[in-house]
Amino acid sequence: MAQLVPVSDPDDPRLADYVRLRDVNLRKSLEAEHGLFIAEGEKVIRRAVRTGHAPRSFLMARRRVEPLADLLDTVDAPVYVADDATVEAVAGFQVHRGALASVHRLPLPDVAEAVAGARRILVLEDLVDHANVGSIFRCAAALGIEAVVLSPRCADPLYRRSIKVSMGAVFAVPYARMTDWRGGLGTLREAGFALLALTPDQSAVPLDQAKVDDRAALMLGSEGDGLSSRWLEEADQRVCIPMSPAAMANGVDSLNVVAAAAIACHGLVHA
Amino acid sequence: MAQLVPVSDPDDPRLADYVRLRDVNLRKSLEAEHGLFIAEGEKVIRRAVRTGHAPRSFLMARRRVEPLADLLDTVDAPVYVADDATVEAVAGFQVHRGALASVHRLPLPDVAEAVAGARRILVLEDLVDHANVGSIFRCAAALGIEAVVLSPRCADPLYRRSIKVSMGAVFAVPYARMTDWRGGLGTLREAGFALLALTPDQSAVPLDQAKVDDRAALMLGSEGDGLSSRWLEEADQRVCIPMSPAAMANGVDSLNVVAAAAIACHGLVHA
Ligand SMILES: C[S@@+](CC[C@H](N)C(=O)[O-])C[C@H]1O[C@@H](n2cnc3c(N)ncnc32)[C@H](O)[C@@H]1O
Ligand SMILES: C[S@@+](CC[C@H](N)C(=O)[O-])C[C@H]1O[C@@H](n2cnc3c(N)ncnc32)[C@H](O)[C@@H]1O
Repeated sequence: MAQLVPVSDPDDPRLADYVRLRDVNLRKSLEAEHGLFIAEGEKVIRRAVRTGHAPRSFLMARRRVEPLADLLDTVDAPVYVADDATVEAVAGFQVHRGALASVHRLPLPDVAEAVAGARRILVLEDLVDHANVGSIFRCAAALGIEAVVLSPRCADPLYRRSIKVSMGAVFAVPYARMTDWRGGLGTLREAGFALLALTPDQSAVPLDQAKVDDRAALMLGSEGDGLSSRWLEEADQRVCIPMSPAAMANGVDSLNVVAAAAIACHGLVHA
Repeated sequence: MAQLVPVSDPDDPRLADYVRLRDVNLRKSLEAEHGLFIAEGEKVIRRAVRTGHAPRSFLMARRRVEPLADLLDTVDAPVYVADDATVEAVAGFQVHRGALASVHRLPLPDVAEAVAGARRILVLEDLVDHANVGSIFRCAAALGIEAVVLSPRCADPLYRRSIKVSMGAVFAVPYARMTDWRGGLGTLREAGFALLALTPDQSAVPLDQAKVDDRAALMLGSEGDGLSSRWLEEADQRVCIPMSPAAMANGVDSLNVVAAAAIACHGLVHA
């Protein structure tokens, strides 16, 4: 059963997991170093715990304790209770839903493990935007994608904003991170996945004519540059979603990566 | 030909159009009152001017003037030139691409005018997020949607963030705002549009079985509550994008509205 511990000093070292939640660079290194992530709001905290993640601690306003009492009863971690101003001073912004948990990450499966048994997977190369990664997980879950593979430099699905935007789908879809960008696609090919590179290049195969086998991996590129030429070359097919020639003449020459992911997942999951 | 006017006082009243660009509430009322919007960055400024919008003034760092010289030559508006610190002090953040223009809005067409001649349109009910509105315009343009109709309370496509996220598509797709939420759909029905309400409700007609006539309007609901029951009832068909039952059991019970828009536009534009 969790211990309630009143706190009031924003510099209290026991609150170090929660500092400056909007400072992306600080958070990246802090969370990696301690193997933690931050769950925000009752719903996300419940989801994280239900999917087997152990809390390190909680930080919440007093009125948020009661609604989580059943969960707090079952875990062994301190619950730091503070007033709103203290929480805000630590986190660096007004935490809307007033409840935060610092949670231990689970060891990620390796790529082969994460995709074992999956027929349709996504592969994300170097996406930098946490909201895009979160939205893509939400699409993936809703549309029946069974696993997501991240390139070594792709943004973290367990960053606070990714989790939020994903509506918790980052806890529902198995994912893994490649350790090696060069060799990463090889693992998937060996596992029998057809590699489909999604590209706005309109000379590629239109989505509805793509040949999908038993197992298919849909590769999506970064917001700015798209897929690397190396990955485009390694793919079995380059696949495009047809776009309006008039829009392209007007400078709208690609879809945003979430929109492209949504259309491609919808088109291929049942193919 | 535009006049270069050096400025250095962030409180200079001539810079009033540019104050606190991240303060959504302030900006909403300020921009509405003066009938202006802010274009940020060389590309967006060019697009705005090319599509017939007259600048009221510019605010930029000195090094940003030269690349825009050809455009500045053709317009009649003051160019306030300041150092980066002054621009930041006025705008309230570091303006990355260093060039801002305050631009006169054009009178919007009325709904009947905006949709005249269009076969496929989107209707957005009360979307609150500027990034979502911008992304949907980008999808709409790229996928060949010919007009967008906004409910009276839908977020502004010409808000700085919407423009940016849309990649300028807000200047490429004609749009109008209903003056009347209750009667608004009537205008579209009279114009012969089949009204398709997009809803996550999985008992609705699956997208690929929707009956689309010559003219179809795809209605999308707000991020939180979805379409109002009134609009759902007024629709000719309720249409859903099928979702994974497993995900729904896990609490992922809808797509984000941009993903839904992308799939629906892709599915129906060529239907
Ligand atoms: C914003 S786009 C990148 C644009 C980049 N300039 C390029 O040429 O790839 C991000 C990703 O979304 C996907 N994408 C965007 N538009 C697409 C389209 N029309 N067809 C297929 N994929 C698309 C691709 O995977 C792309 O790498
Ligand atoms: C986030 S959803 C709103 C969810 C809301 N709870 C509801 O039940 O409508 C925002 C909008 O996206 C569209 N949408 C989301 N998922 C959809 C799906 N599976 N099929 C069709 N439209 C969907 C709908 O237009 C919806 O109003």
